[in-house]
Amino acid sequence: MAFQNNLQRAVARECLYPSYAGEYNFTFAEAPHLFILESGVPFGPITVNYQTYGQLSPRRDNAIYLAHALTGGSLVGTLPHQDKIPGWWEPLVGPGKVFDTDRYFIICSNVLGGCYGSTGPASLDLKTGRPYGMRFPVITIRDMVRVQKALLDHLGVEELFCVAGGSMGGMQALEWAVTYPRKVRSIIAIACSGRFSPLGIAFNQAGRKAIMNDPAWQQGDYYDGPFPYQGLCLARIINTITYRSNESFERRFGRELQRREGNPFAFHEQFAVESYLQYQGDKLTQRFDPNTYLYLSKAMDLHDLGRGYTSFQAALKRFQGTALLVGINTDILFYPGEMGGLAVEMRRCGVDARYQELRSPHGHDSFLIEFKVMENIIHEFLTKLA
Amino acid sequence: MAFQNNLQRAVARECLYPSYAGEYNFTFAEAPHLFILESGVPFGPITVNYQTYGQLSPRRDNAIYLAHALTGGSLVGTLPHQDKIPGWWEPLVGPGKVFDTDRYFIICSNVLGGCYGSTGPASLDLKTGRPYGMRFPVITIRDMVRVQKALLDHLGVEELFCVAGGSMGGMQALEWAVTYPRKVRSIIAIACSGRFSPLGIAFNQAGRKAIMNDPAWQQGDYYDGPFPYQGLCLARIINTITYRSNESFERRFGRELQRREGNPFAFHEQFAVESYLQYQGDKLTQRFDPNTYLYLSKAMDLHDLGRGYTSFQAALKRFQGTALLVGINTDILFYPGEMGGLAVEMRRCGVDARYQELRSPHGHDSFLIEFKVMENIIHEFLTKLA
Repeated sequence: MAFQNNLQRAVARECLYPSYAGEYNFTFAEAPHLFILESGVPFGPITVNYQTYGQLSPRRDNAIYLAHALTGGSLVGTLPHQDKIPGWWEPLVGPGKVFDTDRYFIICSNVLGGCYGSTGPASLDLKTGRPYGMRFPVITIRDMVRVQKALLDHLGVEELFCVAGGSMGGMQALEWAVTYPRKVRSIIAIACSGRFSPLGIAFNQAGRKAIMNDPAWQQGDYYDGPFPYQGLCLARIINTITYRSNESFERRFGRELQRREGNPFAFHEQFAVESYLQYQGDKLTQRFDPNTYLYLSKAMDLHDLGRGYTSFQAALKRFQGTALLVGINTDILFYPGEMGGLAVEMRRCGVDARYQELRSPHGHDSFLIEFKVMENIIHEFLTKLA
Repeated sequence: MAFQNNLQRAVARECLYPSYAGEYNFTFAEAPHLFILESGVPFGPITVNYQTYGQLSPRRDNAIYLAHALTGGSLVGTLPHQDKIPGWWEPLVGPGKVFDTDRYFIICSNVLGGCYGSTGPASLDLKTGRPYGMRFPVITIRDMVRVQKALLDHLGVEELFCVAGGSMGGMQALEWAVTYPRKVRSIIAIACSGRFSPLGIAFNQAGRKAIMNDPAWQQGDYYDGPFPYQGLCLARIINTITYRSNESFERRFGRELQRREGNPFAFHEQFAVESYLQYQGDKLTQRFDPNTYLYLSKAMDLHDLGRGYTSFQAALKRFQGTALLVGINTDILFYPGEMGGLAVEMRRCGVDARYQELRSPHGHDSFLIEFKVMENIIHEFLTKLA
């Protein structure tokens, strides 16, 4: 089922993300105090949808920012009195869990450009009274982080004990370390890289083309018309392949047909792996904005810690805290060697950087699957820090 | 430039594949003597476009069949008096080359389902007077090989000294060994597998959806209307990514913008790798039929040497000749371990199977790039055989 219009989408989002106690909006950068994007473009107002868990300590030294990946939102754990919908790192966030909300003050916000309550391409452009669509400016991972900094200033959080995230979330953790080197005591960056690889750019290009090839996309102005269902679905299929691995597909599906009694020689008969990917594609169309997909994948493409510094190393040298980099041995989107190499480079730049390989058959998305292992890795790191 | 109709396509094909001396058509399976496909569907007539190089020896023991990959055709070398367009393995095929046409009788044909002169979805269905489109039956790698066998019978070639190919061509080489175990003295199968992986099926699914999402595709009946340019272009982009490797993209493009003075923050500004992939996508639309793309990728998905036998091993055991399996260390579509593992399995089944890893940064397509290394590997193998 695809959304036919904004109203349906809003209703659906309401179901997915009801208004919790603990979920808030923060709006800033209203004219004339616009936010200057990394591109130099002035932009505003910016609304940030965020959730907090736990309490800021009197010394204000227990705040942890958790950064979500491409299709995530601010729902990272489970807020009190609301336990129906698990957040994207729910097994890791809560009382007594590794991101212990009895101990830490956890903050998670939907990124700039997102579609879960923060300002993005689907938001109303006050100048035109219409959604921005493709008139939304190109944003970067650094812009996301700078918006998160504005949120933390608003919350009175002056220093972060840790910033953690995987994939696009890991990019944000690294960017926090470089952009606000004295505000971040530690980072945990998982399954990402210091600058996005051309292979990753290539896969993102394919996903974007899938959306933009859909006639319903209408140059991004589809909000009052049919939803670009086929395009977003295919984009998700392409990217989901890169989030898994051959090993995980082999274990889970092998070469089984979806219908056991199916005719393998019928053109439209699906292998189980095809049916699974189609399901993943369908599912995303029920909860995500295609233009957000375009803008966030572009932000990933532009991810390069060294941009604006004299060198990549000059950027790395800025960080004063401790970094834990985690690569996944079966990741085909971010090769584990990228994370291992980055840790070496950070150490050469004088940064206290550690590298750990997460071994799992599940590929890139292991950080959203292998909770036990993640828990151990994160626990060990945070314990040594404290 | 996309083809607007069949005529344009025919003209373009004429330019790419002029009628050489040495290029022929063979037609068989005319009603009522239809060809029974692996699916059980009777089909015909079947035309096979093929080229031959060199001479069949009086003892008829020097024939080598070279099998092309997804988008190839019968032009494998360079025919006498025609040297403008190099064939897909031109550096390996010719007088004094590793596939020495002074010594061997080389045969290459366009596969069943292809669009380079052999019967495929773009061919006229005599029953309707229209191109088959999606009324073309699903075919398999085994069907391709059985059609090639019919061609060899027609040519009076009773035994093959060798069958060689990469990717879909390698699948054909393996299928030759299993289907006609006593007719094939040796095979060289490169960058493929004994049964296509779910990862490969997934990438093919994405490519097919790209084509079928294109409104111009018209359920396959586009031959008199606009060409499904965007769909085929995206399919090619997706698959080209899997034919290369991160290493090859890093070496060649890194994170450079296509326009040195380009604005990285402009949404449509392209990285060099994007521009390259777009070019590859464009290029294929000028020479390939989208429906053929669908059917050949489906044939790859169905590739499973064991189908129809009591077990995968039972199929392998049939082969009486010598096999050389070549994996490519950076191949992300067919992991080299698949080829290495298959060689082990073949040996356990009593087959004389050797494995060699081709080390190259160029990924899957290395067998079409690393000619020097390929030459050495093939030379060593053929010399020991002779």
